[in-house]
Amino acid sequence: MINEAGQAARANHLPGSAADQVSQERLWRRHMEMAALGAIPGNGVCRQAFTEEDIAARQLLIGWARARGFTSAQDAIGNLFIRRPGRDPAAAPVVTGSHLDSQPSGGRFDGAYGVLAGLEALEALEDAGAVTERPIEVVAWTNEEGGRFAPGAMGSMVFTGSRALTDCLAITDGEGVRLEDALAATLEATPVDETRAFNFPIAAYIEAHIEQGPRLEAEGVPIGVVTGIQGSRWFEVEVLGESAHAGAAPLKTRRDALQGALAAVQALNQVMADDNDIVRFTVGRFVVTPNSPNTVAERVLFTVDLRHPEAEVLWRLAEAVGPTCEAAVGRCDVRVRKTFSREPCLFDLDVQRAISESARELALPAIQMPSGAFHDAQFLNDVCPSGMIFVPCEKGISHNPAENASPEDLAAGARVLAQTLIRLVDGIKA
Amino acid sequence: MINEAGQAARANHLPGSAADQVSQERLWRRHMEMAALGAIPGNGVCRQAFTEEDIAARQLLIGWARARGFTSAQDAIGNLFIRRPGRDPAAAPVVTGSHLDSQPSGGRFDGAYGVLAGLEALEALEDAGAVTERPIEVVAWTNEEGGRFAPGAMGSMVFTGSRALTDCLAITDGEGVRLEDALAATLEATPVDETRAFNFPIAAYIEAHIEQGPRLEAEGVPIGVVTGIQGSRWFEVEVLGESAHAGAAPLKTRRDALQGALAAVQALNQVMADDNDIVRFTVGRFVVTPNSPNTVAERVLFTVDLRHPEAEVLWRLAEAVGPTCEAAVGRCDVRVRKTFSREPCLFDLDVQRAISESARELALPAIQMPSGAFHDAQFLNDVCPSGMIFVPCEKGISHNPAENASPEDLAAGARVLAQTLIRLVDGIKA
Repeated sequence: MINEAGQAARANHLPGSAADQVSQERLWRRHMEMAALGAIPGNGVCRQAFTEEDIAARQLLIGWARARGFTSAQDAIGNLFIRRPGRDPAAAPVVTGSHLDSQPSGGRFDGAYGVLAGLEALEALEDAGAVTERPIEVVAWTNEEGGRFAPGAMGSMVFTGSRALTDCLAITDGEGVRLEDALAATLEATPVDETRAFNFPIAAYIEAHIEQGPRLEAEGVPIGVVTGIQGSRWFEVEVLGESAHAGAAPLKTRRDALQGALAAVQALNQVMADDNDIVRFTVGRFVVTPNSPNTVAERVLFTVDLRHPEAEVLWRLAEAVGPTCEAAVGRCDVRVRKTFSREPCLFDLDVQRAISESARELALPAIQMPSGAFHDAQFLNDVCPSGMIFVPCEKGISHNPAENASPEDLAAGARVLAQTLIRLVDGIKA
Repeated sequence: MINEAGQAARANHLPGSAADQVSQERLWRRHMEMAALGAIPGNGVCRQAFTEEDIAARQLLIGWARARGFTSAQDAIGNLFIRRPGRDPAAAPVVTGSHLDSQPSGGRFDGAYGVLAGLEALEALEDAGAVTERPIEVVAWTNEEGGRFAPGAMGSMVFTGSRALTDCLAITDGEGVRLEDALAATLEATPVDETRAFNFPIAAYIEAHIEQGPRLEAEGVPIGVVTGIQGSRWFEVEVLGESAHAGAAPLKTRRDALQGALAAVQALNQVMADDNDIVRFTVGRFVVTPNSPNTVAERVLFTVDLRHPEAEVLWRLAEAVGPTCEAAVGRCDVRVRKTFSREPCLFDLDVQRAISESARELALPAIQMPSGAFHDAQFLNDVCPSGMIFVPCEKGISHNPAENASPEDLAAGARVLAQTLIRLVDGIKA
């Protein structure tokens, strides 16, 4: 995708000049201003989609953009675009960004970093006086986390056509609020310069994000060039036994759903065992009925979250979930239901190369690595060349108020992002 | 305790004559009338302590008593006594009964049977024209189940001095209702002939109950002579790990509280293994935080309910719970807290003998057996000679709407109860 003309065009900007204008101080300050919206104890953030806090975050971003002369636009699901124009107003933009919403008990950097690093890159281009052929836009995708209105990645899915807007409008939150109403209130409270259609042409998409894993920090490397996103299979496993009196029922006669579920998880642990530690296998939800200390459990519902970057391995492990549970639950019954499935995503090699070369030019060590978490980029990858830049986060902790990252690492990532945008913006054929 | 004079006194009643007056039809009909109060789908009952349904059940019992000329009395925790007088009004009564409250999703016979069998025995004595030296009373103990206001066996504990009334009054239910207020409303709605002090002298206590286990049905025996009640140790085990992103965190770096808890339960399974199937070991409650499909669990709280009829075995197994969990949880931390402790109870041998001989006289096969469940009788056993009669229940199912028992078995138990009351009522020294 990146052609020789692009290489030549890039030479028009002094390489690194925009990256040099990235301000670590400005970027960190904006993170702290953003983190104040929905702040919760322990340095955390609760800023779920379409809440007052989400609206305030959108308004803050629009305000920063206006102050620098950038225009704003929104589409019908509330994806918010900030535009720095290029020489050719008709050219498809290069887009960068992430999301501003958070988990209910989330951190300050997941999502917000990608948006603020994108804005910082636009500011740096402006400060460097760079002129690009194509426009560059920063996007804040709507409802990436999905904690209030499930599923997540809603904005990027609707934008790219993976999901219809009309299928989302009737979704309700835990208090019965319809997404349609919450969305309308959000759009009304965040007037922008322009309305956008879904799936307008995008030349390339690049998303900066904290790693949400421990590897970059452990290896002392500031930049991760993301090769792709693991595929996923989610299951709900329901183990059915029979309730009985804890004091009276002999253990040999019991159909104890908790013991059955426990045996199933143990058997799955064996199947998922991986010396290379690539398989991601998690039982995160485990709900017991009636959940009374002196009653043998009659029902357990547990979830399986299975991920792997290789499609064939993922398929083989997923196929084993049902039979493994059935063989393990003894006198109980079991039902296994697949609830989510997503094939592995491989990011565009040219975008990966642009990131690697940008890091090299800036003398920042970088490694190639897969992403464990979902990101909006995996849906954009269906419609345009896409990629991601990871920066270290403390101890790999994420989806937690304790989520943390250093100002230096965040700025280094923003410099690589700015440099990569310059490489992409004139290096991609219309 | 039972003396020769008692043997002689008993001869004054034609043996079996009161038992012969037990009406299977009347007893079953009263069970069905009682089961209508708080009826839930699947033939179940929800009649928790101090609810409208509990009040209605008390009123129904008082009404039946009045209709037959029996007097009623209540103490300050709401234990309800129905009295059939003896020749000596000053003599300590022989008391029989159980409780009228149920589990939130309970059955028609747990508790209610002991009260209704007691009333049936009084009616049978009346029909037989029996004259006893001592009074006989039927009791409905308050809040045996403890599902609404914990702990259970509250009425019998307060009556016998195991727990102070003042410690109970401030207990609240799940909706914040104070026990003190619910109790006052109950007492006001159920006017009785007399107010009783706690722990008035009782000559002997006998409680009829469904087995809540499968043994009598499986062995085809209608009567269980209960030798005692297992001792209990309850624990709360808290496993502490660290939340992490299910897609990102490598399994080898995780401190997964769910996997830690699961390993602890597996290790406890090994410790509790018992070829004779006497040990009762139950993990009935298992609560995961944050309980999200794509987040590694940071905390699991699970309960251990351990019971055994032998004090030494119970002690040894209970001592092993903490160290076993600590050794099993790997990279997680664990805290083990003992929440309840009760030594094994051994019922009075004379009362056991009176039940056995009554069954033999009535040509009803009987076996000696321990009780797996708690009963009010274990607290009464602290203050007077006590015992229990078990009758079969279908498949051993209890604490469940499916709880069932046959009219024939219930009547057989009531006949043994009536016969035993006659044996006890004049056979015990004042």
